Amino acid sequence: MGHRVIIVGGGFAGLYAAQAFRGQAFDVTLIDRRNFHLFQPLLYQVATGGLSPGEISSPLRYVLSKQKNTRVLLGEVTDIDAQAREVVLADSSRYPYDTLIVASGSTHHYFGHPEWAARAPGLKTVEDATEIRTRILLAFERAEKTHNAEERAALLTFVVVGGGPTGVELAGALGEISRDTLKADFRSINPAESRIFLVEGNNRLLMAYPPELSAKAEQSLIELGVQSRVGARVTAIDDDGVTMQTASGEARIAAKTVLWAAGVQASPLGKILADRTGVALDSAGRVCVAGDLSIADHPEIIVVGDLARVIQNGAQVPGVAPAAMQQGRYAARLISARQRGEAMAPFHYRDKGSLATIGRNRAVAVIGKFRFSGYLAWLLWLFIHLLYIVEFESRVLIAIQWGFAYFTFNRGARLITGADARVEDGATPSLPPRAKE
Amino acid sequence: MGHRVIIVGGGFAGLYAAQAFRGQAFDVTLIDRRNFHLFQPLLYQVATGGLSPGEISSPLRYVLSKQKNTRVLLGEVTDIDAQAREVVLADSSRYPYDTLIVASGSTHHYFGHPEWAARAPGLKTVEDATEIRTRILLAFERAEKTHNAEERAALLTFVVVGGGPTGVELAGALGEISRDTLKADFRSINPAESRIFLVEGNNRLLMAYPPELSAKAEQSLIELGVQSRVGARVTAIDDDGVTMQTASGEARIAAKTVLWAAGVQASPLGKILADRTGVALDSAGRVCVAGDLSIADHPEIIVVGDLARVIQNGAQVPGVAPAAMQQGRYAARLISARQRGEAMAPFHYRDKGSLATIGRNRAVAVIGKFRFSGYLAWLLWLFIHLLYIVEFESRVLIAIQWGFAYFTFNRGARLITGADARVEDGATPSLPPRAKE
Repeated sequence: MGHRVIIVGGGFAGLYAAQAFRGQAFDVTLIDRRNFHLFQPLLYQVATGGLSPGEISSPLRYVLSKQKNTRVLLGEVTDIDAQAREVVLADSSRYPYDTLIVASGSTHHYFGHPEWAARAPGLKTVEDATEIRTRILLAFERAEKTHNAEERAALLTFVVVGGGPTGVELAGALGEISRDTLKADFRSINPAESRIFLVEGNNRLLMAYPPELSAKAEQSLIELGVQSRVGARVTAIDDDGVTMQTASGEARIAAKTVLWAAGVQASPLGKILADRTGVALDSAGRVCVAGDLSIADHPEIIVVGDLARVIQNGAQVPGVAPAAMQQGRYAARLISARQRGEAMAPFHYRDKGSLATIGRNRAVAVIGKFRFSGYLAWLLWLFIHLLYIVEFESRVLIAIQWGFAYFTFNRGARLITGADARVEDGATPSLPPRAKE
Repeated sequence: MGHRVIIVGGGFAGLYAAQAFRGQAFDVTLIDRRNFHLFQPLLYQVATGGLSPGEISSPLRYVLSKQKNTRVLLGEVTDIDAQAREVVLADSSRYPYDTLIVASGSTHHYFGHPEWAARAPGLKTVEDATEIRTRILLAFERAEKTHNAEERAALLTFVVVGGGPTGVELAGALGEISRDTLKADFRSINPAESRIFLVEGNNRLLMAYPPELSAKAEQSLIELGVQSRVGARVTAIDDDGVTMQTASGEARIAAKTVLWAAGVQASPLGKILADRTGVALDSAGRVCVAGDLSIADHPEIIVVGDLARVIQNGAQVPGVAPAAMQQGRYAARLISARQRGEAMAPFHYRDKGSLATIGRNRAVAVIGKFRFSGYLAWLLWLFIHLLYIVEFESRVLIAIQWGFAYFTFNRGARLITGADARVEDGATPSLPPRAKE
């Protein structure tokens, strides 16, 4: 029996680690709560009706079916017995490992206001995306039916909290939906009169980008009808809108739809690792790792992806897909090297660049020393995202839908589904009961 | 202001009626609970992971956006005031009509056992399809994890109740999933050992087809690993399986997954119409209509699609998409003719043929006097279904996925989603809370 590797999490870090073991003499088990790998960078397109969940998801079993040394287990890891070297699932079953790769990622963080979750859903899971899609579409449907002007205005006001890449993408897509997609669809309202606000606590959008690209992004958003509110800290979210603290005092936006793209927090497995091994966590709950991504006193436990606190040049390596992929592959190479008795250099994140899209023909990009925006950045964004989609079939499906959307301005996956499918009750929708995240 | 036509329901009957008013001087309102038209004939492919919901759905507003005389209203009709000529929505709003077209279709019918609904979901809505998809995939996941041989066998046993076209399609797809799609995906179980039963109360499958095609279908199902049980009446469905009454006595199948494709019942609007107008209903709750599809004493109320009892040559016109389309278009032509003071011949269903697919390269077809089966029937089935999909974009997406599926045997939309996304609890999943159907 080979060296047993357990990988917890089938996101970019975990899946790329698993794939890096292909053909090697390891006994690999990938455990995830979900049966599919989700291409998170395009999840906002599901939330805004451009793509279907199935098109950005790849069944983990299918992706790994040809790797005969690898087994996929659907389950939730609830404990890690670092002494016995076993992971424990929610059904109390235990799985022994020789090396453990923890890649369970991150979840939303409401800055100490968990009660905001029901009012302002975040965007992490497929269910989040279809929930947001339903809320956006229902807001327009309710606006079409109401006879109350004030209510109509609040229904046609959308607030996105968080001016990072996800917030910018969501706000930009909302601009396109209201200005283009729905243009001819209603008879009582004009969707183009919708107001879309992007609220950011820092003093500019896209803090991870150079200031001139933040300015370009803000300009692109204005062209799409999005108003940004930088330097505004959200202090309350209720059924009728959002309250913010700004430099000039308290401000209020009356809005029926609020979307959360602000904080992320490490997966609860970080806390469990800290309890079981004494490893330190940072303020976001990320696990402090050594240069080789393993944890103190437990070289057999490696943490990768959004869950890992990896400092390079004095800054945290960003929680983006390329960093997760590189860490996942590094972990697999490290384990191989150890088996061969070879030493490995510490993990080094190679920043290949950053891309954020705002909407049709609009994006910003930093590639090495080059900084650019507009059509070229947008084409590059399209190309890179298609390239990294795991399945060739998904690539074709997404390319075709983008092609149609470009020429018709339509979004084909505009379904109102789930418990809130009906418009009648008039009540603001609340999140349906859901499995614990 | 033009003659006001209200259409209730955006299925085949309602949507084709609405489209037939294009460019005419009528003031048309289409009311549906959902914001999309669903291409029901392919819903079983969503339930079996072959397609995504967005690919077989078309937003009603988008389909009708260019028809400026037509407005779409998202809402549930709860009453029809035949005296005042108004429909009443769940929020008590009232909409007056000059002519009303009722096309609210049908729903599941559990033969007096509504408690079976939670154990054996039927296939009418997008949510039904994703629920069935989750149940099928979770059964394999749980089988992979269990150490109990009896439980594993029950998890790998699937029962489809009802041997009409939907039941045959579901059972055939289950055969393909277990024999082809999942072939290399598991390490502890062999999905090909799954047992799939198709239970039918009549003495042959596909009662609407000639007996020789029923025999062909049964043979095709056997090749896919499906065992049919004809002449078996289901008497109980519980957490552990299905009990049936057969000619040779009581029989029992231990199965964790049971799917319902048996009875349908007319939409509750039939009962409301009966209460308000005195019109007669048949035993399935369908509204008895005159030759021109209008109801007694109320020529301004026209019933079309699955809700209408239409007798032709001594038999009920079948509840299939082509019949609904023809009735919807007839209703629109009738209203136009009346406006012009012209008479219309009674509705006549033109049977263009019947097609049922069983699986890859396998289908049965009746076109006029011709009866055929196998590859040619299957190609015809593919062609016809692509032809009738409402949006060109969906047509391309579906064609591509069918192409990939044909050559790779994969099904790309194999997502376990919703409240039952986790496998841990080990309990048989129950239906999540849902909006009233």
